[in-house]
Amino acid sequence: MGVEIKIPEATISRISVYSRYLVEVERQGIVNISSGEIAEGVGGTPAQVRKDLAYFGAFGTRGVGYNVRLLNQEIKEILGLSRQWDVILIGAGNLGSALSQYRGFRERGFNILAVFDNDMNKVGLKLNGLPIYAINQMADFIRENKVSIGIIAVPADYAQDVADILIDSEIEGILNFAPTVLTVPEEVIVRDVDLAVNLEVLTYNIENKDV
Amino acid sequence: MGVEIKIPEATISRISVYSRYLVEVERQGIVNISSGEIAEGVGGTPAQVRKDLAYFGAFGTRGVGYNVRLLNQEIKEILGLSRQWDVILIGAGNLGSALSQYRGFRERGFNILAVFDNDMNKVGLKLNGLPIYAINQMADFIRENKVSIGIIAVPADYAQDVADILIDSEIEGILNFAPTVLTVPEEVIVRDVDLAVNLEVLTYNIENKDV
Repeated sequence: MGVEIKIPEATISRISVYSRYLVEVERQGIVNISSGEIAEGVGGTPAQVRKDLAYFGAFGTRGVGYNVRLLNQEIKEILGLSRQWDVILIGAGNLGSALSQYRGFRERGFNILAVFDNDMNKVGLKLNGLPIYAINQMADFIRENKVSIGIIAVPADYAQDVADILIDSEIEGILNFAPTVLTVPEEVIVRDVDLAVNLEVLTYNIENKDV
Repeated sequence: MGVEIKIPEATISRISVYSRYLVEVERQGIVNISSGEIAEGVGGTPAQVRKDLAYFGAFGTRGVGYNVRLLNQEIKEILGLSRQWDVILIGAGNLGSALSQYRGFRERGFNILAVFDNDMNKVGLKLNGLPIYAINQMADFIRENKVSIGIIAVPADYAQDVADILIDSEIEGILNFAPTVLTVPEEVIVRDVDLAVNLEVLTYNIENKDV
């Protein structure tokens, strides 16, 4: 690749939020939208929206704004959502159950194929319509179905073992909900979701609000 | 307050992750730690760690590193964790259930007092040891117990109604897991947790990895 600009991860997160809002706007048949309208829709500022979109070469036209359909296409391309992603979920507990029914995933092109768990009372059953298989069936399943992403929703003590199977099966990415740092080779992309972080950013913001 | 530096939210998130790691390190009796060791422990880079900590005036000593105990104290102070936060959880479904048993919250000073739900088959029961009350008991409960934070884990269609009760009851902050943008007055701090964002940052990183 040629010259590359490093885009902050916070920008990617916000672009993802804009994208979901813009899909809804497009569904309503709206043709153009201003940075101010996007900001209002997602709870941000117009300057932030303009800055974020400018990273991707999307510039609104003064007095007209952005073309909603084109902007949607561009953003989906950027986020890697113009393809479908086949996903498996590991862990059929409360969190796995909540994730399996999270409707936002399928709408965005994430196709959960199956759930894996080591509880033999759950294996063979369904979780929100998805088949539950045993962990020792996982490697074969990933290879046969060319699964791209594994979502880890098991207790911290089991997370590295699960990750090791995913890595050996040549998974592309891991979304890790277990509160532990995984050791993975460079070619596997990991994103950790730490639920306590969100509460602590909240308390920081409460303690530091301008009032 | 005097001169104030705007600290990026991504920095606050990382500081929260460092903090949990440093608590573990302190528990092991380790006195000093280098930025490289922190980076290794959390899966970051030493330069990033140094930059993040410098925002808060914490500078390691060359050849010695940071004093673990002092750094822990400083970070907890910054994040607003030197006090205890009383929290309620709204929604006793799968996500609420997963959150109620998330051990990371209590360890960090977040004390979940009760769960609220509008399902009368659940009201009066317990969820992982926490009492489940009806939503119409929530306003009184918040005032009587001086609750600071409400965690919303209800479907999107109910989230604003729940938020309105929290706001009327003078809650300080809301952690919102519902995939919807809440309308709140300026004095209430909201943090949205959008689970799809995490998957989309992951796919962006997969599509843009340097290989």
